Amino acid sequence: MATKLTTREAVNAFIDRHDTFLFDCDGVLWYGHTLIPGVDKTLELLRRKGKRILFVTNNSTQSRQAYTKKFEKLGLSASKNEIFGSSYAAAVYLRKVVDFPVDKQVYVIGQAGICDELDAASIRHNNPADDSSTIDWEGVEAITPDPNIGAVLVGFDMEINYRKLAKAYVYLTSNPGCLFLATNDDASFPHHGRTFPGTGSMVAAIKGCTGREPRVLGKPHQTMLDCIVAKYDLDRTRTCMVGDRLNTDIQFGVQGGMSTLLVLTGVTSEQELHDARHNITPEYYADSLATLNMADTADE
Amino acid sequence: MATKLTTREAVNAFIDRHDTFLFDCDGVLWYGHTLIPGVDKTLELLRRKGKRILFVTNNSTQSRQAYTKKFEKLGLSASKNEIFGSSYAAAVYLRKVVDFPVDKQVYVIGQAGICDELDAASIRHNNPADDSSTIDWEGVEAITPDPNIGAVLVGFDMEINYRKLAKAYVYLTSNPGCLFLATNDDASFPHHGRTFPGTGSMVAAIKGCTGREPRVLGKPHQTMLDCIVAKYDLDRTRTCMVGDRLNTDIQFGVQGGMSTLLVLTGVTSEQELHDARHNITPEYYADSLATLNMADTADE
Repeated sequence: MATKLTTREAVNAFIDRHDTFLFDCDGVLWYGHTLIPGVDKTLELLRRKGKRILFVTNNSTQSRQAYTKKFEKLGLSASKNEIFGSSYAAAVYLRKVVDFPVDKQVYVIGQAGICDELDAASIRHNNPADDSSTIDWEGVEAITPDPNIGAVLVGFDMEINYRKLAKAYVYLTSNPGCLFLATNDDASFPHHGRTFPGTGSMVAAIKGCTGREPRVLGKPHQTMLDCIVAKYDLDRTRTCMVGDRLNTDIQFGVQGGMSTLLVLTGVTSEQELHDARHNITPEYYADSLATLNMADTADE
Repeated sequence: MATKLTTREAVNAFIDRHDTFLFDCDGVLWYGHTLIPGVDKTLELLRRKGKRILFVTNNSTQSRQAYTKKFEKLGLSASKNEIFGSSYAAAVYLRKVVDFPVDKQVYVIGQAGICDELDAASIRHNNPADDSSTIDWEGVEAITPDPNIGAVLVGFDMEINYRKLAKAYVYLTSNPGCLFLATNDDASFPHHGRTFPGTGSMVAAIKGCTGREPRVLGKPHQTMLDCIVAKYDLDRTRTCMVGDRLNTDIQFGVQGGMSTLLVLTGVTSEQELHDARHNITPEYYADSLATLNMADTADE
């Protein structure tokens, strides 16, 4: 049974039992292009109390540095080191979890965020500019196994095409030991109140031809948490995952052995939370992240 | 236990018990660009005996008319009406099986073969030329549900891109009753002794974002046979499926209640046929389709 945070005492106790807060962004901090009222104060409050804050996002198209601009636009401050995107998770996974050989390259299907994060981690990658051009039979025949490619990493790529599919296929089926990584496998993503095909669509295309299952970095897969733990010295029992969706954020937190807080400013409603048909229950829930601002006055 | 055709009596009895022969092409009639010796005579023999011959192919990129040229190049004769490709199967399915509304259009991800067969069946389709150009966010936002689209049909498309994925996604998730059809779901296809991503890769991309399962026309799915039966007045018990692969052609025949002949000129070897680990067994097998030429001299 989830505990609803409604009193100052409960909020104080909730904050005190955690050292680190992991935040989903959309639906928790903002909704589309609108800041959720009061969350700017909540982030300040938690920082003032010496809490570590990490923003965890499956968005692979932007590097951490680029993603800070989204925060700035909405009047929030976030440092690069507070952002943990799925592209960065891929870099951490390759560098710290599997010790990717320095003489190997990653074949990237994805956008700038992935390349920027691999560059920052000094991981060699291969994504020739002309991969975004269309292909004919001669071009298909010219694709050969490249022994330098040690991994294929698939993220969101609006320039996905058959040339890229065929290259990924050849590397994954011909190169011994070639890793298959995906930044996330979200079927769709929201954009201006609608949804469109997400990274999961591109990942499915590669699964569909190779028959291989990727290592998926993003939430709710636990590899994301393994990467966060590999980077920071987290005590999971004193870490809280804050999100607006039961089947991604809260599942991610529960499976990861963390405490969880569901906020009702996003996808999951209070009615859905109490629906017995789902079997994912957060430890805490609150109307909004800004509910935590109740604790503020107690400190002043 | 499969019966190997090795004697004139057995071959004569085999031919006599069938009115119709369905042929897989690659590995049965030819191998890549080389005719399998003697099969030209076999086809003549069967025609002379008044048998109906149908060439059943999952290849969706060419219309039946265009596919006859492949036969001609190899010195075989085949009329358009003897060829049953997966694009034609899609047209038959829409026209004869589901009675696709005349005022609706099919959104096509695919190449000329599909459009040609839909045109020949007077089925309206929608595949604007600029769909093959790349897309930006403005282009994504411009994609709206189109009430005229009653089906999305996915075949092999070397110009697959995000614009096409997003359109298919919007139609399949927003248009009430929109059908989802695939010409086939072959993971890969052979080309010059290698393999490359097949239609299954493109179909998987659409499945991956929409969560919908397509109606697959091609072998080994039985819809192909339903379409053949809808077009021709076949007695399945007097029809033989001839192929070189246990898990596609022979499975297709067995599930369809037809007799089956495995030829050893393609993928499946005699050793694999006798391997107890698989559970698909043809009724007959022969070293080559040309084994049937033994019957010829008996008639002369």
